[in-house]
Amino acid sequence: MNQDTAAALHPFDQATRLTEQGGRLAGQTSPAYANMVGPFGGVIAATLLRAVVQHPDRLGEPVALTANFAAPIADGGFEVLARAARTSRTTQHWTVELTQGGQVAATATAITAVRRQTWEATDRAFPQAPAMEGLRSLKKLPGLPKWVGCYDLRLVRGGIPPLPQHEPPQADSSETLLWVRDEPPRPLDFVSLASICDVFFPRSFIRRQRMAMAGTVSMTVYFHAGAAALAAQGERGLLAHARGQRFHGGFFDQSAEIWSPEGLLLATSHQVVYFKE
Amino acid sequence: MNQDTAAALHPFDQATRLTEQGGRLAGQTSPAYANMVGPFGGVIAATLLRAVVQHPDRLGEPVALTANFAAPIADGGFEVLARAARTSRTTQHWTVELTQGGQVAATATAITAVRRQTWEATDRAFPQAPAMEGLRSLKKLPGLPKWVGCYDLRLVRGGIPPLPQHEPPQADSSETLLWVRDEPPRPLDFVSLASICDVFFPRSFIRRQRMAMAGTVSMTVYFHAGAAALAAQGERGLLAHARGQRFHGGFFDQSAEIWSPEGLLLATSHQVVYFKE
Repeated sequence: MNQDTAAALHPFDQATRLTEQGGRLAGQTSPAYANMVGPFGGVIAATLLRAVVQHPDRLGEPVALTANFAAPIADGGFEVLARAARTSRTTQHWTVELTQGGQVAATATAITAVRRQTWEATDRAFPQAPAMEGLRSLKKLPGLPKWVGCYDLRLVRGGIPPLPQHEPPQADSSETLLWVRDEPPRPLDFVSLASICDVFFPRSFIRRQRMAMAGTVSMTVYFHAGAAALAAQGERGLLAHARGQRFHGGFFDQSAEIWSPEGLLLATSHQVVYFKE
Repeated sequence: MNQDTAAALHPFDQATRLTEQGGRLAGQTSPAYANMVGPFGGVIAATLLRAVVQHPDRLGEPVALTANFAAPIADGGFEVLARAARTSRTTQHWTVELTQGGQVAATATAITAVRRQTWEATDRAFPQAPAMEGLRSLKKLPGLPKWVGCYDLRLVRGGIPPLPQHEPPQADSSETLLWVRDEPPRPLDFVSLASICDVFFPRSFIRRQRMAMAGTVSMTVYFHAGAAALAAQGERGLLAHARGQRFHGGFFDQSAEIWSPEGLLLATSHQVVYFKE
């Protein structure tokens, strides 16, 4: 890919781009997806998944991804190595490592599989929400980390002042419901969906209604849709729902669901987050 | 450890025992924890965590574990290799691999950390349940996999006939609430808690009220208590709550919580499971 082609890429594809250099994959942090410190974790998780998805030996489609954030990632270049640890007839297990300056900064495991058509059901309830179009976007608000501008985020509930939200804040709740799509719009795929699973502000901010240091330590994504269902989603907004379950000893967890506007559960996602008071 | 000492171990500690052999750790499947095919997955996840916990370089206590079941594990010996991928002042990231006959059969990542005392809260609701003592145990029932006899499992709801359960079956529900402790009783620790996160029968059995092939592909455990809180739990029963969220294309997910009898949320756990119709 030459410079002109790279410049024509969507910012998300630029941020998660990996190019082969001597058997390893080379990546580069993107200023557009900068967080308070280092890059937005979602884009790193997505980059680790991209290393699997674009691997020539890859079998089937992503079913699960666990990304572990082992150290702060500095602005600049990094390397990614993805390895098929075991391949069966229909399923493949991957281990992935991101290194920077020769040190491991992130690890991941992923599972890809050839899906079969089976009986299906959704037991989680699709949340009620007003249409995305009627809600205020966070994208033009000042004072937020850079990466927030790479998404069109619209809060139904569970924000933190002065962010606009449709419903009044609830006391002692760590729940957030919001609409989200890439900004500028981009057709959904596994890699962008993985990143979207990390767009929630830390549950500690919401629960306590104040900001303090927090950072994801490990996140898991289970994909519940195939490539065709993601392609059918196109560039439309997704309904994203998250809550914390326990905050204790400097860590809390978050469980989340990502829904299509018609109520198709595209992904469930979980993470454990380090926080300070 | 000589033969006599090994024989005096609790069956769970025998099943998850790892002995050093030339820089690698050697383990052995246990007939007591046999599943339909191969060993009970919980005991394998626990063994992968034990490789981290007993590592001489280990820092702090387990915060997160993701175990991936890459291939069937045959009865007999296996090797485990745990490696600290990155260590900071308070947090450590681990990668673990289980091999059998030179091939990878399971992988894991784990995070350990020195926990600090912080503000705490539990947002997940503690489920109502009758006392464990008044419920019927599954442990003497015929026809169940061997590992079930290594736990005292008592169903409040969400079983499958002819298993005894306290509440009548609910149509189209994938929820299970049960009491569980090791059998014979054993003081709780991180390793046994990891295994307990996998004691639920597959959600597809419960949702459809019939059995068919199913196997966990990946499971994640977030630990929400330190060693002291687990020690305080002792040998008492734990209240375990699980449900599926989406069943699609040959896979479904499960989210679960493990509670102390007083309502302390000890662990939250998630898994993705392969199923056939």
